[in-house]
Amino acid sequence: MRILLDPEPRLEGEIFSPAAAARLAAEHSVVRFDGGDRAAFYARELPGAEVVMGQQPLTAQAIAHAPRLRCIVNVETNFLPNIDYDACFARGIHVIAPSGVFAQPVAELGLGMALSLARDIHGAHADFVAGRERWGLDGTGRAELLGGAPMAIIGYGDLGRALHRVLAGLRPQLFVHDPWLPPEFLRRQGVEPAGLVEALGRARVVFVTASVTTDNPGFLNDAALHAMQDGAMLLLLSRAAVADFSALAAHARSGRLRIATDVFPEEPVAPDDPIRAVPGMLFSAHRAGALAGALTTIGDWVLEDLALIARDLPPVMCRRAERETVTRLRSKPISRS
Amino acid sequence: MRILLDPEPRLEGEIFSPAAAARLAAEHSVVRFDGGDRAAFYARELPGAEVVMGQQPLTAQAIAHAPRLRCIVNVETNFLPNIDYDACFARGIHVIAPSGVFAQPVAELGLGMALSLARDIHGAHADFVAGRERWGLDGTGRAELLGGAPMAIIGYGDLGRALHRVLAGLRPQLFVHDPWLPPEFLRRQGVEPAGLVEALGRARVVFVTASVTTDNPGFLNDAALHAMQDGAMLLLLSRAAVADFSALAAHARSGRLRIATDVFPEEPVAPDDPIRAVPGMLFSAHRAGALAGALTTIGDWVLEDLALIARDLPPVMCRRAERETVTRLRSKPISRS
Amino acid sequence: MRILLDPEPRLEGEIFSPAAAARLAAEHSVVRFDGGDRAAFYARELPGAEVVMGQQPLTAQAIAHAPRLRCIVNVETNFLPNIDYDACFARGIHVIAPSGVFAQPVAELGLGMALSLARDIHGAHADFVAGRERWGLDGTGRAELLGGAPMAIIGYGDLGRALHRVLAGLRPQLFVHDPWLPPEFLRRQGVEPAGLVEALGRARVVFVTASVTTDNPGFLNDAALHAMQDGAMLLLLSRAAVADFSALAAHARSGRLRIATDVFPEEPVAPDDPIRAVPGMLFSAHRAGALAGALTTIGDWVLEDLALIARDLPPVMCRRAERETVTRLRSKPISRS
Amino acid sequence: MRILLDPEPRLEGEIFSPAAAARLAAEHSVVRFDGGDRAAFYARELPGAEVVMGQQPLTAQAIAHAPRLRCIVNVETNFLPNIDYDACFARGIHVIAPSGVFAQPVAELGLGMALSLARDIHGAHADFVAGRERWGLDGTGRAELLGGAPMAIIGYGDLGRALHRVLAGLRPQLFVHDPWLPPEFLRRQGVEPAGLVEALGRARVVFVTASVTTDNPGFLNDAALHAMQDGAMLLLLSRAAVADFSALAAHARSGRLRIATDVFPEEPVAPDDPIRAVPGMLFSAHRAGALAGALTTIGDWVLEDLALIARDLPPVMCRRAERETVTRLRSKPISRS
Repeated sequence: MRILLDPEPRLEGEIFSPAAAARLAAEHSVVRFDGGDRAAFYARELPGAEVVMGQQPLTAQAIAHAPRLRCIVNVETNFLPNIDYDACFARGIHVIAPSGVFAQPVAELGLGMALSLARDIHGAHADFVAGRERWGLDGTGRAELLGGAPMAIIGYGDLGRALHRVLAGLRPQLFVHDPWLPPEFLRRQGVEPAGLVEALGRARVVFVTASVTTDNPGFLNDAALHAMQDGAMLLLLSRAAVADFSALAAHARSGRLRIATDVFPEEPVAPDDPIRAVPGMLFSAHRAGALAGALTTIGDWVLEDLALIARDLPPVMCRRAERETVTRLRSKPISRS
Repeated sequence: MRILLDPEPRLEGEIFSPAAAARLAAEHSVVRFDGGDRAAFYARELPGAEVVMGQQPLTAQAIAHAPRLRCIVNVETNFLPNIDYDACFARGIHVIAPSGVFAQPVAELGLGMALSLARDIHGAHADFVAGRERWGLDGTGRAELLGGAPMAIIGYGDLGRALHRVLAGLRPQLFVHDPWLPPEFLRRQGVEPAGLVEALGRARVVFVTASVTTDNPGFLNDAALHAMQDGAMLLLLSRAAVADFSALAAHARSGRLRIATDVFPEEPVAPDDPIRAVPGMLFSAHRAGALAGALTTIGDWVLEDLALIARDLPPVMCRRAERETVTRLRSKPISRS
Repeated sequence: MRILLDPEPRLEGEIFSPAAAARLAAEHSVVRFDGGDRAAFYARELPGAEVVMGQQPLTAQAIAHAPRLRCIVNVETNFLPNIDYDACFARGIHVIAPSGVFAQPVAELGLGMALSLARDIHGAHADFVAGRERWGLDGTGRAELLGGAPMAIIGYGDLGRALHRVLAGLRPQLFVHDPWLPPEFLRRQGVEPAGLVEALGRARVVFVTASVTTDNPGFLNDAALHAMQDGAMLLLLSRAAVADFSALAAHARSGRLRIATDVFPEEPVAPDDPIRAVPGMLFSAHRAGALAGALTTIGDWVLEDLALIARDLPPVMCRRAERETVTRLRSKPISRS
Repeated sequence: MRILLDPEPRLEGEIFSPAAAARLAAEHSVVRFDGGDRAAFYARELPGAEVVMGQQPLTAQAIAHAPRLRCIVNVETNFLPNIDYDACFARGIHVIAPSGVFAQPVAELGLGMALSLARDIHGAHADFVAGRERWGLDGTGRAELLGGAPMAIIGYGDLGRALHRVLAGLRPQLFVHDPWLPPEFLRRQGVEPAGLVEALGRARVVFVTASVTTDNPGFLNDAALHAMQDGAMLLLLSRAAVADFSALAAHARSGRLRIATDVFPEEPVAPDDPIRAVPGMLFSAHRAGALAGALTTIGDWVLEDLALIARDLPPVMCRRAERETVTRLRSKPISRS
C-alpha cells in the first residue's frame, strides 16, 4: 500500500528493526515526510495515500481529500483529539495504535515494583551499600507475602490484562474495577468484578492501569486512598492525571500506604520537588514501557496489521479507535518515547 | 504425644502462633527444656519422649535410651550432622524439618530481585531520590523483558519448586539442573533437564537454590560464571558456600553479569568488606526466608505432621531426612533465624 | 432503549431467563412483533427503534427509516447476508451476535469426543453392554494418551479459543491454523501458527472450528485428510460445509483416521444415509452448542451489551460484525437452535 | 547392580522397550528366573542380589539371606502383603513400585468418561447409529457444562493428583477428600479439603481414586451415595472394593445419579450379570491404566530409580512403600496387567 510516513516524535529507525524496514520496503510504497513544509506535503500526498503513519492533525476536510485512505496508524500509541474520527468511521478507515507493545514491559515492571514494596528490596539494598543493613528477621520490617494475596487491578485494558497474566504465579485473588466493562465480562476472564471502593478496600496490592478519560481525572484522591487497608500497596503504572499526587505523598509519608509510581504530573520532575524525599515511595522515571525492544515491536505489529488490511481483513495486533471511547480518552502527546 | 521441647536457637513463641500453642497444649504433653543442665534434662526425659523438637545432638546411645521415640523435629530446618541418623532409620524414627515454610518467601524475593536486576528498579529509585534519574528510554539501560525468556534453576528442591510455581506468569523456558534427580523426573514437572554448563549457558536468568552438599561447595566458580551469557543475571538464594564470592564480585564489577545475593560467606558482612561497593550487585542481608509469618508456619506444619504420626500415618508437611542424602548435606547451624 | 423484539426462529422465553426478562422489562421499552404483517410492523416501528433484536432482512432503505437505530442484535448468532451492513457501519450502528455463548459447550463436547476417540469410550461401553467387551490391555486397541500430544485447531475464533482453554490440562503442543490471523497474534496466545497442511500433518488430534466463508467450503477434502498422520483423530465441530463428507467417511471406513462429527451436510440425516454405518466414526446430532443454559446466556449477554450501548460505550460480550469479514461469512440460517 | 529378575505376571518384554532392555543390559548384571524351581532359584541367587524385581514372597529369613539387597521393585505396581516390610525398612532396603505410570492414562479416561456422562456422548452415538437420534436441543437431555463446576476427588494419591492436573482446563472448584493428608497439605495444592460427606454433597462430578485400605472397603455405600446431588456424576476409577456395587446400580437405575466405572467386584464380569443392563451407567472393562505405552514406562522409570540407587541416592520416580501405610493397603494381585 502507499504509506505516508511521518512518525514524529518517534524516529523511523527506532520503530522499525532492520528486518522490519526491509519488509516495509518490500511490501509497501513509502513516501516519507521530508521535514519541510508539512501542510504542503500533506496536501500533495494525501490524495494518493492508503495509509498515514503518524500523529499529525487530520481534519474532516483533509480526510475528504484522501479518497484512497484505509488506515491511520498512530505510532506514538496515544489516540489524540486531533483527528476527525467520525469522518474516519463513516468511511471505514481504521485508526489504530500498537499500544499493546507496552503492556508486557509495564506489567513486568509493575510486578517487580510490587515485590520491591512488599519486601523492601530497594531499601534493603541501599542500606546494605551504606553499611546499615539489618540481618534476617530484623531486616524484614513490614515484609509480606504476595502469594495468594488479594490484589486489585484498576482499569482492565491492555495493561491490566498483561498484569493479570504476569501475576499468575502468585495465584492472587484478583478484583478488577473497570467502569467500561460489565461484571460478566470480567468473570469470564477469571477475575472478580468490583466497584472502585470495594477493589481498593479488599486488596493488599492495587495496580492502577487506567487510562485518563473525560470521567476520571484525579479519581485516586484522598478519600479513595482512605478506602485502602493499612499498610497496603499501590502502584501507579498508567498516567499521573488519574491520581491526586499530594494525597499519594501524604499517605506514603505517614506510613499508612506503600506507594510506587512510574508517572508524575510534570515530567521531568523538578530537582527540588519535595516528592523526591517522601519516605515509603518507590520511584521510577517513566521507564515502565520504555524498552528498546518494545519500540521495534511497534514496527512489527504495524506491518502485520497492514498486511491484513491489504488483504481486506481487519487489523488484530493494534488497538483500534472506537467511536464511543476515542473521544473520551485524554492522553497527552509524548515529548519523546 | 509426649514432646521434649527444646527449640533453641528458635524461640517457642516465635514458631507457634497463639492458636498453634493452644493446639500444641491440647493435643500433646509437652516437657520444656528449663535452661539448666541440658545433659541431665535429656537423660531424664528421653526415656519417656515420643517426640524431640529441637536441634541438640543425639547419639546412637541417646536414641537407644529413648525407646518410645517416634519423631525428631528440627525446627531450625537444617539437618545437622549431630544426630545418629542410622540409629533413627533402623527404628523407623522420622527426622523431619519444615524447611518448606521458607520456600514461598524465598521464591517471591527471588522473583522480585530478578525483576529488579532486569529493570534496575533499585538503581533507578536511588537515582531518582538523588535527583540524577534519567527519563523514559534514556533510563532503561540494559533493561530486558523476562516474559518468555530462558531461565535456569540450579537445585530443584523445595526452593526450586516454589520458584517454578512463582515464575509461571512469565512463562519462561525453564532449564533445571539437579544432579540428584533424573531427567525424566524433571520433564514430568514441565521443565527441561540440563547439565550445569548447559543450564548456565542457555539462561538469561539463573536462580541458584541448591543446598550445600559434600559434592558442591564452590561449584559456582569463575569457570562456571564464564559459561553464562553476557549481561545475564544470577541470583544466589540458598547458601553462600556454593559460590566463589570473589568470582561473583569480579563478574559483577566488570559488568559482564548482573548478580543478586541474599547470602554471604560470613554473616554479618564486615562494615568495610569491599563487596559492598561492587557495582552491578544487588544485596539482601539474608532476608529471603525471614518473614514472621514463615516462622509461625513452622509450628502449624509440625503440628499437622505430629497429628499424622499420632495416627500412625507418615508425615507429609515437613521434609524428611533420607538415609542417602542427609549425610551429604552441609548446612551450617543458624545463629538466629 | 426502545427495542423492536422479533427473535424468530428463537423464542423469547428460550433466550431470556425469568431474571433476564425482568431486567429487560425494567431497563428497556420493548415492542414485540405480533405475528401479523411483518412488513407493516417494521414500517411502523423502525422509525422509533433504537435496537432491533432479530434476524429479519434490513435493507439500506429500511435502515434509513430508522434514524434512532443504534444496534441490531442477531440472537440466532449467525450473521446473515440479509442486512445492508455498509449502511449500518456508515452510521455506527453495531450489528452484534452472542455467538460466544456456544463456545464453552462446543469446546467441552469437543474434548469429550476427542477422549472418546482416543480411548474408544463409546465403543467399549457398547461392547460391554453387548457382553463382548475385552478386558485390560486386550481392550485398549489403538488407545493413545493425549497428554502432551501435538494437536491442531483449525479456525481460532470463539470456538477455537474456548477449546484452547479447555485443553489446558492436557498440555498439548498446539498448532493453530487461521488464515485471518497473523502468526505473531497466534504466538502471543501461546500457540504455534501453522499452515493448513502443516497443522494437519503434525497433530494427533485436529479440532475443526472454522466458520464457513466464501473461501473455504470443502477445504477438508481428500487431499487434506491425506496430510494427516495414520491413526490421527479429527473432530468436526463447526459447520459441515467446510468438509467433503465422502472423503471423511472414506478415511474413517478404511481405518486410516478416527473421525468425530457434530454436524452434517443435511440435517436431520436421512434414516438410510450410509454414513450411519461407517465404522470408526463418532456421531453427535448437532448437539455441541445446544444446551438450555447456553440459550439463556444469550439473553444475559445481550442485556449487558445493551446496557453498555445505552451508556455510549461499545459492546464487549457479543461478537460484532466487521466490515471486512461479515460479507465473507456463509452461515446458514438455523431451523431451530 | 546385580538384579534378580522375576517379573511375573508381567513379561520382561512388556515392561522394557528395546531401548530400555539395552540400557538394562548395559548398566546392570541380570539374573533371570528360569521358570524352574523358584525356591531353589531364590536360595541360590538372593545372597548375591542387590535388586529383586518381582512380586514373589520375601520373608524376613529370605531377606536376611540377601545381605547385599538394596531394593525390591514391584513391577505389578501393587504392594502385596507377601514381603516382610519391617525387615526391609530396618536395613534401608527400598521397596518401590512404579504405580504412577498409570496415573495419566487413568486421569485421561476419567475426564473422558466424565464428559461422556455430562453430555451423553456414548448414548447419543449409539442412538445415531441406530437411527433414533434427537437433534440439537432435543438431544441434550440432562446435559450440563463442567467448566467451573464443583467437583470432588476422593483419594489424592498419584491418580488423584494426575486428575487434578488433567482437569485444569475446566477450572473446577475442587474438593478433595483424603483421610491420610491434612487440610493444609491439600490447600497448598490449590484444592479445598473436605470430609467425605461434604465432598460428595458439593460436587456435580465425583472422581473416586482411593486405594483400598484396611479402613475403607465399601465406603461408597447407599448412605454415601445419598449424600450426592440429584443428577450428579460419579466415576469409579481405582478399585471396586471401595464401593457397594448394588448401591451404585440402584442409584444409576433410578436415574438419581449418573455413574461410570472402570472396575468391578469380579473381573471379568459374568455374561449374565444384571449390571450390564443398568441404564445410566457407563462401563469400561478395566481399561483405564492399561495402555501399552504405560507398561513400557514401567521399565523406564525403574531404570531411572536403579541408576539413582546405584549412585547412593534415593529413588524418586517410583512410589516407595512406607512403614505406616504399606500394611494398610489391600491390593489384589493382578491376573494379567
